[in-house]
Amino acid sequence: MTITSFIPPHRTLMGPGPSDIYPQVLQALSRPTVGHLDPLFIGMMDELKQLLQYAFQTQNAFTIAVSAPGSAGMEACFVNLVEAGDKVLVCRNGVFGERMRENVERCGGVAIVVDNEWGTAVDPDLVEQALQNDPEIKIVAFVHAETSTGALSDAKTLAEIARKHDCLTIVDAVTSLGGVPLLVDEWQLDAVYSGSQKCLSCTPGLSPLTFSQKAIDKIQQRKTKVQSWFLDQSLVLGYWSGEGKRSYHHTAPVNSLYALHEALVLLQNEGLENAWQRHRNAHEELKAGLEKLGIKFVVEETSRLPQLNAVYIPEGVDDAEVRNELLQRYNLEIGAGLGVLAGKAWRIGLMGYGARSENVALCLKALETTLK
Amino acid sequence: MTITSFIPPHRTLMGPGPSDIYPQVLQALSRPTVGHLDPLFIGMMDELKQLLQYAFQTQNAFTIAVSAPGSAGMEACFVNLVEAGDKVLVCRNGVFGERMRENVERCGGVAIVVDNEWGTAVDPDLVEQALQNDPEIKIVAFVHAETSTGALSDAKTLAEIARKHDCLTIVDAVTSLGGVPLLVDEWQLDAVYSGSQKCLSCTPGLSPLTFSQKAIDKIQQRKTKVQSWFLDQSLVLGYWSGEGKRSYHHTAPVNSLYALHEALVLLQNEGLENAWQRHRNAHEELKAGLEKLGIKFVVEETSRLPQLNAVYIPEGVDDAEVRNELLQRYNLEIGAGLGVLAGKAWRIGLMGYGARSENVALCLKALETTLK
Repeated sequence: MTITSFIPPHRTLMGPGPSDIYPQVLQALSRPTVGHLDPLFIGMMDELKQLLQYAFQTQNAFTIAVSAPGSAGMEACFVNLVEAGDKVLVCRNGVFGERMRENVERCGGVAIVVDNEWGTAVDPDLVEQALQNDPEIKIVAFVHAETSTGALSDAKTLAEIARKHDCLTIVDAVTSLGGVPLLVDEWQLDAVYSGSQKCLSCTPGLSPLTFSQKAIDKIQQRKTKVQSWFLDQSLVLGYWSGEGKRSYHHTAPVNSLYALHEALVLLQNEGLENAWQRHRNAHEELKAGLEKLGIKFVVEETSRLPQLNAVYIPEGVDDAEVRNELLQRYNLEIGAGLGVLAGKAWRIGLMGYGARSENVALCLKALETTLK
Repeated sequence: MTITSFIPPHRTLMGPGPSDIYPQVLQALSRPTVGHLDPLFIGMMDELKQLLQYAFQTQNAFTIAVSAPGSAGMEACFVNLVEAGDKVLVCRNGVFGERMRENVERCGGVAIVVDNEWGTAVDPDLVEQALQNDPEIKIVAFVHAETSTGALSDAKTLAEIARKHDCLTIVDAVTSLGGVPLLVDEWQLDAVYSGSQKCLSCTPGLSPLTFSQKAIDKIQQRKTKVQSWFLDQSLVLGYWSGEGKRSYHHTAPVNSLYALHEALVLLQNEGLENAWQRHRNAHEELKAGLEKLGIKFVVEETSRLPQLNAVYIPEGVDDAEVRNELLQRYNLEIGAGLGVLAGKAWRIGLMGYGARSENVALCLKALETTLK
């Protein structure tokens, strides 16, 4: 059987990611490939570092994009910062906190878990207590914006508590970067990773990553080699560093990095504050419309992410049937629930290029019609 | 300072990869992004599996693309197949054999190294001896086509020896897939990884990977968890498997997979045998021209890769100056030497779409003019 080219339809992506991609990003993606050690490409990577520093609001010299999806960015943080026997406090209020725990254990670390209900923010008091109980804990790991529930945690406060107890922080900012304030330097976060396919509206496959000097120091004091060669950031740094000759580590995903560069140029041109405001505006429009339809949010208003709206599926409504109808009739994707919310909630993303009135209008009208 | 869009020049890529990309692949890359759980995308992934099975010449059910570059494909083989204390025979005749050794040690395995001179093939007799000497060895790892030297090893014979000693094989086919015969099933190879950016002429960032049933059995008999969550193929399988409901593991690099699908459709349409012949033809043209220029090959004719031509830099010639002149004046990239060949050799790639008479002609004329 002969297989032919795959020609995808044009969907409107309002799930938990990938988000709607900027047309300029798709254009950038298909520009001619150059060598990954080409001087012009190295210049592009230097710009990309600066653009990522802007997005993360950091001056960290180590600010790069991991050549793999957000899960690899998460793993890059844990394998570099955790050594066998290290105790790590993991805050778990959704799927990605649980994945962090898995990562700690696979590094030979000891995970101390603080649980919060799915759909709520991490409770700083519980973190404070846990750290008081166990002074051997050296790292606090938490998810800033839980993609599985739409809950935003208070990264600034959690990092303050961690510092008070002399702990480094590992922060999942996959869904927060570019969508809500994330101030890496001001909040003194130590290891922060994100994803290209959420509020940056770039194609999926890359993970922006930044390490503070304290994180770098910890890595340099390791007694053992990092268990992953691919994710060993001391090796990766030789390739991304701006000084002198680049040393080959792996072949960079050239075209994907063009796309990320373009997405970040767009963010720079819009301005971070404007981007955050645009996400809030789109969320307010969506919220008003969903309330008219009688649809309720999973997360309380105070810790609700504007860019990821987890809402309960109305009683008596068939989850898969509605999502299928939206996809088939309107080419509109919304997300299913994940983990304990599977079958109970939908996740409606308003991320990056997707945080626009036309997307909100389409989603509301399509839902209204389909739910009737 | 405001950063603007990056507009790369059009280079002719004749280094060790990324290779010249098919225009159709760049087009595929910029098609509209769909969700990674979209039924149409899942259909595309099923086709991609079939196309990869064709390229690898295998019926292995576990045949996928790792969502990261070839180095991650390598690591996926080692972290899944090697447990702490396992003895692995690593054949080292270039940079990538050494990287395999690193991988074994970072998995807690014991690497027994068989060294062959850079630029030569792996000597089957040395492998036979090493396996006779140590019956505890359970895996034999080798590089089919050494990208750092241009040497082709006899994968069929090495795998036969491994089987005789009841060992599995891990095979680096990064530069061989699509360029020279690689018959996974006929040769009974167990874990084989490749890269998208070599003879498939797709953009860099993905690693085709196939596991035999014996490899899968070994993974299922593991006593410990795979140390990498991202590369744990028992989890990845839940996403790539064709049966029933896909389970979310990580967000697939949607557009990069479009590109790989397209590159493999082109390979299918041309036919593997024709592609191999085209690589040989381009190599013969290049060889004839280089000989006229008095340039000598690093690798003996019997184990020379047609798609990666490592040649000695002529006496008295400035390596960097020549490569720079080729790049600046002709927009032509050839590769520098790597490891012990740095400063001594160039690597001229004729991979995938790059294995054409026009590329050979450009390279020969540009070299002739520049070396005068």
